[in-house]
Amino acid sequence: MATRDPKQERAIRTRDLIVRAAAEVFEESGYHAASVAKISAKAGVTQGALYFHFKTKQAIAQEVMHAQGSFVQIPDEGRGLQRLLDVNFYLARELQRNVLFRAGVRLAVEQGEIGIQDASAYQGWADQFHEILVEAREEGELLADVDEREFAQVLVGAYSGTQLYSKVATGSVDLIERIASLWRYLLPGIATAEALARLSVRPNWAEPRG
Amino acid sequence: MATRDPKQERAIRTRDLIVRAAAEVFEESGYHAASVAKISAKAGVTQGALYFHFKTKQAIAQEVMHAQGSFVQIPDEGRGLQRLLDVNFYLARELQRNVLFRAGVRLAVEQGEIGIQDASAYQGWADQFHEILVEAREEGELLADVDEREFAQVLVGAYSGTQLYSKVATGSVDLIERIASLWRYLLPGIATAEALARLSVRPNWAEPRG
Repeated sequence: MATRDPKQERAIRTRDLIVRAAAEVFEESGYHAASVAKISAKAGVTQGALYFHFKTKQAIAQEVMHAQGSFVQIPDEGRGLQRLLDVNFYLARELQRNVLFRAGVRLAVEQGEIGIQDASAYQGWADQFHEILVEAREEGELLADVDEREFAQVLVGAYSGTQLYSKVATGSVDLIERIASLWRYLLPGIATAEALARLSVRPNWAEPRG
Repeated sequence: MATRDPKQERAIRTRDLIVRAAAEVFEESGYHAASVAKISAKAGVTQGALYFHFKTKQAIAQEVMHAQGSFVQIPDEGRGLQRLLDVNFYLARELQRNVLFRAGVRLAVEQGEIGIQDASAYQGWADQFHEILVEAREEGELLADVDEREFAQVLVGAYSGTQLYSKVATGSVDLIERIASLWRYLLPGIATAEALARLSVRPNWAEPRG
C-alpha cells in the first residue's frame, strides 16, 4: 500500500478545513458577504495557506458546490425504488440540519450570482439516482416506458425546485412533506402497480401527516 | 370613470420604466454587479427620480421578482389540463426569449444572495395553476385522489428546479424538452385514463423529439 508523506497529509487536511469553514461562512452570510479573511479565520489557517490552495473566493465556492455529495453519508440500505425514496428523504433531512450540505446546494442554486454556470453538482446527483433506477429496473419495479436516465434528470430538477420553494416559503420546515407530495404524483408515472402497492412514500422517522 | 391626473400618469410610467430597465440590468449583470446608476441610465431617468420610487436596489429587485407574472401575456385559450400544459410550454418559451421574465425568475431563484426570503412569486404561480386545476376537476380530467392545491405547489416547485437545471446545463436550450419530460412523468399521477389519451404533452410549435 502506498503511504502518503506527512506534508501531503497535512496539505489535504488543510484544504478540507478550508472547504468546511467556507461552507459554514457561505451558508451564514451568502457568497458576496463572505470574505476570504473570515473563511481563513474560521478554518484556523493563514490567508497565505488559503491562497496556496484556492486562487479566488469563487474557486472555493465551486469546490463547496462540488463537495456537496461528500458532506452527506447516504445509508447503504435497501434497493430499487424504496431505496430511491429513502435516499430522497434522507437528503431532505440533511438539508434541514447539515449546514455543509445546505451550503453546497445553496451555492449550486445561486451560482448565477457567483458568476458561474456549472451543472456538475446536478449531474452528479442524476448519476447517483440513475444507478438506483437501474436496480429498480432489475427488480421489475419500473413501467416499460420509463427511461431511467431521463427520469433521473427529471427527479433532480423537480427535487431542486421543491427544496428551493420550501426554503423560501417556510425556511425548509415543510421540506419532508413537500418531497412526499412530489413523490405521490411522480410514482404512478414510473412504478408498476405491484411496486406502488408495496412502497412507502413516507420516511419511518417522520411525523405522520395531518 | 375616474381619470388620473397627468402627474400621476407620468409617475406610473416612470416607475414602470425603472422596473423594466432594472430587469434588463439584473439579467445582464446579476444582482450584485448591477448598480443603481446603470439602472437609472438605462431607464432614462435621474437617480433622484429612481430613489423617489425605490429606496434601495433590493426594493427594485423585489419588485422585478413580483412583476414576473406581468412580463408575460399568457394566451387565453383552452381549458383544464391541456391549458395547464400549454401555459407551461408558453412559459418555457418565454424563459428562453423574454429577458424581463427571465430576470424576475432569476432573482426569485437567487434571492438568498439578495438577502430576502419571499415566496410570493412562487405562490402567485401556484394560485394561477390551481385555478386551471379547478377547471380540470370540473371537466372530470383529474383522478379522485388529486389535491388541486397540493399539486399546484408540487408543479411550481418541480418547474422551478427544472428550469434551473436546464439553465446551468444548457443555457435553457433544452428547457422545452425537459418540461415535456417532467409532464410525461407527472401526468399519470393526476389525469384520468380518458384525459391521458387525449392530452398532447408537446407544444404544437416545438420541434419534434429525436
